[in-house]
Amino acid sequence: MAEALKQLPQSDHPDLLIGYNSADDAGVFRISETQALVQTLDFFPPIVDDPYFFGQIAAANALSDVYAMGGVPLTAMNIVGFPKGIFPPEVLSDLLRGGQEKIIEAGAVVVGGHSINDKEMKYGVSVTGLVHPGRVLSNSAAQTGDLLFLTKPLGTGIITTGIKRNAASTEETDLAVKSMAALNRVASELMIKHNAHSATDITGYGLLGHAYEMAVGSGVTIELNSSNFPLLPGAERLAKAGMLTGGANANREYVEKDTSFNPNLPEHIINIALDPQTSGGLLIALAEGDAKGLAHDLEAAGLWSKPIGLVKEKEEREEKKEYQLILN
Amino acid sequence: MAEALKQLPQSDHPDLLIGYNSADDAGVFRISETQALVQTLDFFPPIVDDPYFFGQIAAANALSDVYAMGGVPLTAMNIVGFPKGIFPPEVLSDLLRGGQEKIIEAGAVVVGGHSINDKEMKYGVSVTGLVHPGRVLSNSAAQTGDLLFLTKPLGTGIITTGIKRNAASTEETDLAVKSMAALNRVASELMIKHNAHSATDITGYGLLGHAYEMAVGSGVTIELNSSNFPLLPGAERLAKAGMLTGGANANREYVEKDTSFNPNLPEHIINIALDPQTSGGLLIALAEGDAKGLAHDLEAAGLWSKPIGLVKEKEEREEKKEYQLILN
Repeated sequence: MAEALKQLPQSDHPDLLIGYNSADDAGVFRISETQALVQTLDFFPPIVDDPYFFGQIAAANALSDVYAMGGVPLTAMNIVGFPKGIFPPEVLSDLLRGGQEKIIEAGAVVVGGHSINDKEMKYGVSVTGLVHPGRVLSNSAAQTGDLLFLTKPLGTGIITTGIKRNAASTEETDLAVKSMAALNRVASELMIKHNAHSATDITGYGLLGHAYEMAVGSGVTIELNSSNFPLLPGAERLAKAGMLTGGANANREYVEKDTSFNPNLPEHIINIALDPQTSGGLLIALAEGDAKGLAHDLEAAGLWSKPIGLVKEKEEREEKKEYQLILN
Repeated sequence: MAEALKQLPQSDHPDLLIGYNSADDAGVFRISETQALVQTLDFFPPIVDDPYFFGQIAAANALSDVYAMGGVPLTAMNIVGFPKGIFPPEVLSDLLRGGQEKIIEAGAVVVGGHSINDKEMKYGVSVTGLVHPGRVLSNSAAQTGDLLFLTKPLGTGIITTGIKRNAASTEETDLAVKSMAALNRVASELMIKHNAHSATDITGYGLLGHAYEMAVGSGVTIELNSSNFPLLPGAERLAKAGMLTGGANANREYVEKDTSFNPNLPEHIINIALDPQTSGGLLIALAEGDAKGLAHDLEAAGLWSKPIGLVKEKEEREEKKEYQLILN
């Protein structure tokens, strides 16, 4: 859709602080000196069998875009495609209950929505949050010298592929579902507290794709240290066994021309870094001086607290090729 | 979905002025003393073949909910299901261009959206508008003595059925499409100017269904005068020929126990009053003293200016049966 929208006459409005031409996570529209709306919507077919958990994950995933911008979720509307007569009505109730619980956990309220009869089930949420117009955290404001944190483990695409192929254990499945259903609320509050410069949430483009967008948008090179990546239990095993999504290849094509891959890295680690995530964590860039405080608070909150990379001046390499991304 | 949502724990928030338990057109959430968000979303499969006009109609239809509440549309996000590989990409461009033109005509901006690969095409919009918290026009505030106005002609369900069965003329088709693609912007501005008490937009429940909800919500009886109904060219001919949607029967079941139908009314007029509308007009209730000014301005704007009914004290009839609706 992004391509189709780019051809259209642009919405040009002085209060549209971030629109759809940005690679940012949500749109931002100023409504007063002190308030801007942060808006996003997302929906997709089930990625897990249980409708209650699917509802939780889809809602957490949509809410995450607001958290990535430093916003506070306020309202939500349900987007539902449901195959009437194929699934019993309890499936719909469970789906909506899962979503609503996450919306309430986020401190937001359901104000409406729409459902249609659909051949394939789909669920998602349109979310509106508030942010101070001067405190929007875009994905294109990382600064040289910043450290990078990632607040959820990688591997949800690999593990959901493993689930579909009956290759994931019950424990691996449960932990992946729990991680996808978790809100990025605390991570967002902590990055605001510690003066983060830039943030994005990790979703379809994988860690490398979203880090690449941050690097390009910020005009920097991002160097990632894979030995510090948080990984879901089973992600390495299943990646080695070839449980990859098609999206990982598309992500590789997207980033590889501007990325230096350490030749000693095992292929399965690169695939985890390229793995499309559903409801992934926040990638946070902040000054080295603030990193210690953030790491301390992330650890206290039970979130991953090791820095996974750093932000450098844009590097020029042999033949003047510029690297936006370095994966070590 | 309404049924499934009603079983869930309710979102209870002092700033949620109108939530999904109301039969109102959109949710209303207060964000300051002087500003409340008016939010709605709607999406559906194509109701006309041309993607550009489908985009216009779907956007006008969603925007209409904001207009019905007395709000001013501010932002919009696209909701797209598109069968990749089945339709050429121009179809998607035309669809989005149609929607975007209506969003811009409404003075709003596109801030984002989401598209997925889908077996069947779908399009709609999530819309956010602003309204003063003290000036929300709900559908349940009609007062005894009010006159009722309807700002678009009836019959879109009948005519789109006629189009599918190759029974509608080119002119009938064009006028129905033009009416569905028209914004309720001017109608909304005029009803605010003339101190309307209550309003709703006519969509899936048809004129009778939405008038019934207004009557029940307001605790009144609404008497409609069908000889003053605005009708799309071809609506009567096609209704007589039996071009009815399944929705009309559902609407009849919804209202008939509390409705007095004048026995002299021809059946096809009742069917037009029950016809599910897409992007229908506003049904506006306002004091008789304000009606003349509204009628004058509606006429000047090229909109239907004859009152189509009036609001009465709730009537009790034989055997203590109460009528909420009278169709003459």
